[in-house]
Amino acid sequence: MSNYKIVISYDGTRYKGWQSQKSTDATIQGKLQDILKKTAGYPVEVIGSGRTDAGVHAKGQAANFHLKEQIDERKLLETLNHYLPEDIAVLSLEEVEERFHSRFQAKEKTYMYRLHTSKIPDVFERKYVYTYTEPLHLENMKRAAAYMTGTMDFTSFCANKHMKKSAVRSVYAIDFQVTEKEIDIIYQGNGFLQNMVRIMTGTLLEVGMGKKKPEDIPMILAAKNREAAGFTAPAQGLVLLEVKYD
Amino acid sequence: MSNYKIVISYDGTRYKGWQSQKSTDATIQGKLQDILKKTAGYPVEVIGSGRTDAGVHAKGQAANFHLKEQIDERKLLETLNHYLPEDIAVLSLEEVEERFHSRFQAKEKTYMYRLHTSKIPDVFERKYVYTYTEPLHLENMKRAAAYMTGTMDFTSFCANKHMKKSAVRSVYAIDFQVTEKEIDIIYQGNGFLQNMVRIMTGTLLEVGMGKKKPEDIPMILAAKNREAAGFTAPAQGLVLLEVKYD
Repeated sequence: MSNYKIVISYDGTRYKGWQSQKSTDATIQGKLQDILKKTAGYPVEVIGSGRTDAGVHAKGQAANFHLKEQIDERKLLETLNHYLPEDIAVLSLEEVEERFHSRFQAKEKTYMYRLHTSKIPDVFERKYVYTYTEPLHLENMKRAAAYMTGTMDFTSFCANKHMKKSAVRSVYAIDFQVTEKEIDIIYQGNGFLQNMVRIMTGTLLEVGMGKKKPEDIPMILAAKNREAAGFTAPAQGLVLLEVKYD
Repeated sequence: MSNYKIVISYDGTRYKGWQSQKSTDATIQGKLQDILKKTAGYPVEVIGSGRTDAGVHAKGQAANFHLKEQIDERKLLETLNHYLPEDIAVLSLEEVEERFHSRFQAKEKTYMYRLHTSKIPDVFERKYVYTYTEPLHLENMKRAAAYMTGTMDFTSFCANKHMKKSAVRSVYAIDFQVTEKEIDIIYQGNGFLQNMVRIMTGTLLEVGMGKKKPEDIPMILAAKNREAAGFTAPAQGLVLLEVKYD
């Protein structure tokens, strides 16, 4: 058995996410598995570093899969990109140790949420941003973000109300990149719960609008209740930038 | 009568170009005129700096139109962007002198043709590039481009075989921006004939492939015959960047 790691980029607009409950849905994982099955001649499971929601994009999702034989890496990379739809691309492919597992061994993930804040639309980026053109109190958003960093129980920022596993995650940093037309929020952490980045973004937006105060964040976290946090920001503004391994 | 100048950005994918022969076609000009007619209460002609072909994009197309009354510029800009489809945006709107004419007074235009040269697709730019992943002889392309600059008769690079007006144009510069994944060719000139940038790009590509030599360009120009030049590169890789006025 040979183990291969791939880094994948996708425009998530058309997809039900990385993985779906229903096998008939169009998913990124499904598209990759279809091509690998045809190429290898047997079913191949593609293990992602984590699921991305329907409509979420990626510039650096990571995954791995096993093949019974060793293959020409460059040739398989070309084959995958040849048969994949034009909104999915494999950026790199390399053989890795047999024990490598893209989900269990992921050490750090970086997500970016792009808020388009200008009243002038950007037609070329329209599918990759969430437009919010009312005034936002940026300094309060930054102060609220500071309360969200650290190793804490993020139950209040998790869409899954029946989580049985630990909701403790480490958020290493939340950075803001501000331009004339965008506020991009960059989240780095060891892992994120279901919808966590989108709920954090929705909550930061509510702080920016003045609906919530930065000082509300500790209470929201302590409540361990999804209802305490803000709304779930739309999927289309979110992109998974990178997954790091040791 | 008040005269207004606008700068427009559009993703040309869905459109039959800036302007079309058939009034039923979806065009950028048509979309703008529809909204202005509803807003003003009478038909308004939007005069573009020039036509862009079906599928060609713009980051800085210029146009002007007359209204019977003076209006609040900021408000009209917001109204236009509110009612325009998401693939067209008005970047700026300002009142100009009554004699200003966006076509007759355009002094310089800048177009960019984006060639995606990497075998790894860029899913987020896929609609705005033309993919050509075979090797290209860049130095020969640059030498050929040098032969295309200057004030000359560009009949061989014009799709319109029944042009009655002069085909003399000044191409000021053809620059190459090369990255790991793209060769972007930037054309600056006082004006361009129908399909001219696309035929120049197709011809440069044929030079890059070795099908034509840089030294063929003077003969191609001298032939004053469309058949002498190379193929017409696809519309989707082309974007009108800027139109300059005095």
